[in-house]
Amino acid sequence: MNQPNQCDAEIIAIGSELLIGGRSDSNSLFLADELGKLGIAVRFKSVVGDDKQDIVIAIHTAVKRAQVIVLTGGLGPTVDDCTREAVASATGHRLGRRKEALDGMTARLAQWGRIASPAQLRQAMIPSGATVLNNPVGSAPGFCLTWKKALILSLPGVPREMEEMMRQEVLPLLRAQHESLGLSPRAPIVRQVFHTFGLPEADIDAKVKGLIPKGASVDLGLLVSPMGVLVSLTTRGNQSALVKSQILMEKLTNEVRSRLGEWLFAEGRDTMEEVVGRELIKRGLMLAVAESCTGGLIGHRLTQVAGSSAYVDRGAVCYSNRAKTDMLGVPADLISLRGAVSGEVAAAMACGIRERSNVSVGLSVTGIAGPGGGTETKPVGLVYVGLDDGTGRPISREFRFHGDRNVIKQRSSQAALDVLRRWLLGNG
Amino acid sequence: MNQPNQCDAEIIAIGSELLIGGRSDSNSLFLADELGKLGIAVRFKSVVGDDKQDIVIAIHTAVKRAQVIVLTGGLGPTVDDCTREAVASATGHRLGRRKEALDGMTARLAQWGRIASPAQLRQAMIPSGATVLNNPVGSAPGFCLTWKKALILSLPGVPREMEEMMRQEVLPLLRAQHESLGLSPRAPIVRQVFHTFGLPEADIDAKVKGLIPKGASVDLGLLVSPMGVLVSLTTRGNQSALVKSQILMEKLTNEVRSRLGEWLFAEGRDTMEEVVGRELIKRGLMLAVAESCTGGLIGHRLTQVAGSSAYVDRGAVCYSNRAKTDMLGVPADLISLRGAVSGEVAAAMACGIRERSNVSVGLSVTGIAGPGGGTETKPVGLVYVGLDDGTGRPISREFRFHGDRNVIKQRSSQAALDVLRRWLLGNG
Repeated sequence: MNQPNQCDAEIIAIGSELLIGGRSDSNSLFLADELGKLGIAVRFKSVVGDDKQDIVIAIHTAVKRAQVIVLTGGLGPTVDDCTREAVASATGHRLGRRKEALDGMTARLAQWGRIASPAQLRQAMIPSGATVLNNPVGSAPGFCLTWKKALILSLPGVPREMEEMMRQEVLPLLRAQHESLGLSPRAPIVRQVFHTFGLPEADIDAKVKGLIPKGASVDLGLLVSPMGVLVSLTTRGNQSALVKSQILMEKLTNEVRSRLGEWLFAEGRDTMEEVVGRELIKRGLMLAVAESCTGGLIGHRLTQVAGSSAYVDRGAVCYSNRAKTDMLGVPADLISLRGAVSGEVAAAMACGIRERSNVSVGLSVTGIAGPGGGTETKPVGLVYVGLDDGTGRPISREFRFHGDRNVIKQRSSQAALDVLRRWLLGNG
Repeated sequence: MNQPNQCDAEIIAIGSELLIGGRSDSNSLFLADELGKLGIAVRFKSVVGDDKQDIVIAIHTAVKRAQVIVLTGGLGPTVDDCTREAVASATGHRLGRRKEALDGMTARLAQWGRIASPAQLRQAMIPSGATVLNNPVGSAPGFCLTWKKALILSLPGVPREMEEMMRQEVLPLLRAQHESLGLSPRAPIVRQVFHTFGLPEADIDAKVKGLIPKGASVDLGLLVSPMGVLVSLTTRGNQSALVKSQILMEKLTNEVRSRLGEWLFAEGRDTMEEVVGRELIKRGLMLAVAESCTGGLIGHRLTQVAGSSAYVDRGAVCYSNRAKTDMLGVPADLISLRGAVSGEVAAAMACGIRERSNVSVGLSVTGIAGPGGGTETKPVGLVYVGLDDGTGRPISREFRFHGDRNVIKQRSSQAALDVLRRWLLGNG
């Protein structure tokens, strides 16, 4: 699979807690992006516990298949933290206290009005021959060394510390190293991501079928999540065909956009809540939300965006029928006639929250998140979204989702925001 | 590091999207738990992209260091999915369409009123000599085979499908295989997890210091997250000392509980929202929540628990000052006098939501999530939690958090639920 002038990287994430998963790994995304810009592809990722011998095995495995090895974690002051010892042992170097590591750490701690504890002094132990990497935001220094033609980088596991050390210390070093060898700059690995909502994977697959010309060095990827189907284009432009590859990527990006059409709601790291936020600001509109089965998730998502107070006025979480009547003025008769989960109640909720908060747009959701509460005619996963803009013609849309309680809540929130997005773009 | 009769496992997660992280890996947690019960320890985890050659390399690496290799993902119908080809190639077997795989798949699709597409037929291609593993909930069959003394299991990446296949097919097989070799059952790996909130890592570290007797085969772990500090005890009882090890673990568990005291809010997979839910039900209390900076996150978390409608009546997301006055009756004068982010407003919000919804307990949060909006006296991260039970003595608590907007929202929601938990337990 290797191409000429290709440089492969391997990430080794260290920590017993990481081994059993359960939390998302934002470090890998950042590292893949930043290394990709330098034309370095992350091909493998290994996760090992806080066990010196296992870290040694992982390093020995990695040097056989990667030219850049990034270790994250295990640089803290506790006995758990054994990355320093493992790197020294794996590469046959000795550990010694290094003045520049100690100085950097002491200076950082002094800023916080603290002095190094005996345990923290361990953090200044660095393998002989390694270069110390300064930690601009935390106390643990990192380091790097070359062994068996591989560059081994040891960085903290805390995302903010790792990111700043990469930006300020590692990336300049990688660039300088590459230039000093008299090599032409590598072509960056470009990745374009397209987020869709509302169509199943098979339909999106059909839309993008045959997109990539035969022989083109662009990979097409599809990923299904509760939030929709993600389409990605990844190119590894080799330097000789850099311009050709850029032109192709541009062409393919436009083609994907046109094929996905209204189903495409965001690109790159953009999110649905950011997209609707920008459109609300652009139109000078204030929003209020009435949630039943999502329980506050839509409000939470909208307010994840800094500055959202400019367009989010309030939300009502109406879990009980009484709350729907009290807070939104939904007639109790309508609820008993149509049921709390119905298009009519969704519309009444949207009107109610809009009128009572005196804003431009009301958005609502009511549904059955399960696992209980479903019936033959109204099964778990039945969800209605309502939208009212005060023109007397409230919108309501029906959705039928599958999955567990959390998945149904997530999809419902996405569906509601997508109804809002389409309305904002005039396709409501 | 290997102990006699020890069996090590390696997980190989397949998927280019997993390589760049950004999503949590719930499969590893489940696999580590289930294999641990059989005394099989997950020592390594590898992540590789959808690249046949890279999967082959990962398998060849794994057989050198693990006796059980669990591959997840890459069994779908698209061209991306190349785990079948990779396992066949790595182990020198041929792929062939297998009747039992086809039958299981066809039967499953028939239940959904569908027939296999040409692409789906690829899913019935199984390496020669491998045993087909039935998929009880999805269409993609799995398979397993023994190669170089390692048991290689290939399972779907979709969590629900992987979990059911493990439960119904793989675990019985692992047990039977172990017995058929005439081996005594392995001692299970026991892991106890304790969740704390409210103390920094250093303080929790000090509390559990010196807990583990010298020479005991129990590992103590600490993990910091926005939701608090997690303490874990992990033992690998070898069979000969099984009873001794169980007694030790019980003793240590009780000791941890007593040392962590009021800071311990949950154990195992239990969550803060489940804990407060149970306590509310036990006391027959209804709750209403008024949120400002958390934007609906507390309501979302409370309603993640099935059956939460029994104790969650409603929530008000009062992002604007006007909403605090309209929805909760917080006097506009109080807001201008003390500021929206103040202990007085938090208390007034809690009283307001409780009175207006006519429930037993009102809980509120107001704070500055940032990045903007902070001042010298009221910096980003300043958060007040209020609680009112109608006795005329509302509680308010001040918190000062660090981190980005999301972290501050998460911590604020945890702090509010912890104030509620302490009040419920009578330590308010």
